[in-house]
Amino acid sequence: MPELRQNFITRDWVIIATERAKRPDQFGHNSKPEIDVPDFEATCPFCPGNEAMAAHERFSYRENGIWQLRVVPNKFPALAETGESLRKIKGIFTSMNGIGIHDVVIEHQRHNATLTDISQEELLRIFKAYVERYKQIKEDPRIESILIFRNHGKSAGTSLIHPHSQIVALPVVPHQIRDRMDTAMRYFDTHGECIFCKTMQEELASGARILLETPHFVSFIPYAALSPFHIWIFPKRHESSFDNISQEELVDLGINLQTVLKKLKKGLQNPDYNITIRPIPTHDRNSEYYHWYLAIVPRLTVAAGFELGSGMYISPAIPEESAKYLREITV
Amino acid sequence: MPELRQNFITRDWVIIATERAKRPDQFGHNSKPEIDVPDFEATCPFCPGNEAMAAHERFSYRENGIWQLRVVPNKFPALAETGESLRKIKGIFTSMNGIGIHDVVIEHQRHNATLTDISQEELLRIFKAYVERYKQIKEDPRIESILIFRNHGKSAGTSLIHPHSQIVALPVVPHQIRDRMDTAMRYFDTHGECIFCKTMQEELASGARILLETPHFVSFIPYAALSPFHIWIFPKRHESSFDNISQEELVDLGINLQTVLKKLKKGLQNPDYNITIRPIPTHDRNSEYYHWYLAIVPRLTVAAGFELGSGMYISPAIPEESAKYLREITV
Repeated sequence: MPELRQNFITRDWVIIATERAKRPDQFGHNSKPEIDVPDFEATCPFCPGNEAMAAHERFSYRENGIWQLRVVPNKFPALAETGESLRKIKGIFTSMNGIGIHDVVIEHQRHNATLTDISQEELLRIFKAYVERYKQIKEDPRIESILIFRNHGKSAGTSLIHPHSQIVALPVVPHQIRDRMDTAMRYFDTHGECIFCKTMQEELASGARILLETPHFVSFIPYAALSPFHIWIFPKRHESSFDNISQEELVDLGINLQTVLKKLKKGLQNPDYNITIRPIPTHDRNSEYYHWYLAIVPRLTVAAGFELGSGMYISPAIPEESAKYLREITV
Repeated sequence: MPELRQNFITRDWVIIATERAKRPDQFGHNSKPEIDVPDFEATCPFCPGNEAMAAHERFSYRENGIWQLRVVPNKFPALAETGESLRKIKGIFTSMNGIGIHDVVIEHQRHNATLTDISQEELLRIFKAYVERYKQIKEDPRIESILIFRNHGKSAGTSLIHPHSQIVALPVVPHQIRDRMDTAMRYFDTHGECIFCKTMQEELASGARILLETPHFVSFIPYAALSPFHIWIFPKRHESSFDNISQEELVDLGINLQTVLKKLKKGLQNPDYNITIRPIPTHDRNSEYYHWYLAIVPRLTVAAGFELGSGMYISPAIPEESAKYLREITV
């Protein structure tokens, strides 16, 4: 008998399609073998020596004068940096100036570096850049929300191989985020606790879907994961703003994330995936009911008409089986 | 300057990325050339003669004893037909029996038939089957919502080429649908009119995004289309339940839909797409504030980290340009 599950935080239902379920090790079969990527590519705009091909540098981390990580504006930005945050409402047509910020974090000198083969210090550098840039951007009063994300592999939307992440700062709060805040707020008002903290406690108490618990973070496959091997990493300390993370927590996040990514790579043959960091909107800092977190979404299935028509998902993976499989993979 | 737009009905924001915008005719460049598909395939479970390979027949339309269209249960259903609609709530973990219905509508005898090359009579037969099956299914009190959808092409999730659609009947209402009903209800309570009717009136008054107006339907690219060439087809008569469509309206819907699909095929080189029909939940019939509609979503871009992390979209297409381009294509 298939099972429907509802995510407690997002209210989304998922069909766990037991009749179509695959064994956990079968999900890697569509992954392409890792291609041999050189450590330098002369035509790559992010490779050392080609700095002039990218837009001007916002800042960089350097060793002996050589950059190790650079933050630059996206050369083809989705949003323009200058201009007023101005809504125009004409009847049903609401628009606003497409102002905002669209950055690229060039994570490493090496063209073929990946999040699973770099050192913990190098990974920490990436997260430090996120925090530094986040703090700078949120001082801009026009900005309402900041999204940090990373696309790994072609089916996850990557066009450039050189390791990079992106930061998009928006002059609006996405409807989906407001909707989830609304649920979290109502839960807090009734129960007097954070719905994310509560979920983490219950997931830890069950243990069935936990991947890794480190001193400051818990990674798990949600009870109602919308797609196979969808992973959430929650900070244990209640905190709504990502940039209030401590240095010690940043180090721990890197360890937790890299371990999970190594397990995914080994267990599912280097799948494509997206990573997103989901904080509270910038003007709603220090909320007692919202909790920032990081999500990893491996791209193992294709959303089709059912998903587009309902916002619901059919998943051929059983979260407890997927979690057990990843827990047992040694890296 | 890029522009942000908010969809009046869904509340979703989209970034119309003018800096990355493509000309309308450039979106077809990723489409694969149409492969030469035979009109019969001996191994196809939906081809005539192979009826035993599919599950038992629910019903069929026949001419001279030969089936022209068949409705069968999906052989690998996402949901089980027998069982109770029973929720289990243990703390934060809400689940229910995965009961429901998962049908396949085998649309045509011919293996290589497409929605753009069949006759209007054949298209009408497909829609008649949707309505007939919809009416049957909604008599089941366990069912809360019924989704009808069609996947065209591999990137849209098709695994079998033989022309078919799917019907999934759920024992729950998807969160996304309830969220939209909530918006529509509040709009009705304030303004005394249906938000869908209002949108259609304003789109017709503007004309800039209209693709085709027929006696009973209006097809248009929404003002805040989330992805390039996303199309909505609204019935002009206010109606929340799809199955209350008249015979005359069904014929007209077929004409409107097929014309639009032919334009898409010619203008964008046979793109992959999904079609979904979005009615009100079955137990909320005859609503004055909700309005059923049909959506066509061509798969021209890939949702990446930004979209997964925010529920917002970045679209490189300008809706007015896309609509003008399709309007001018003769079919």
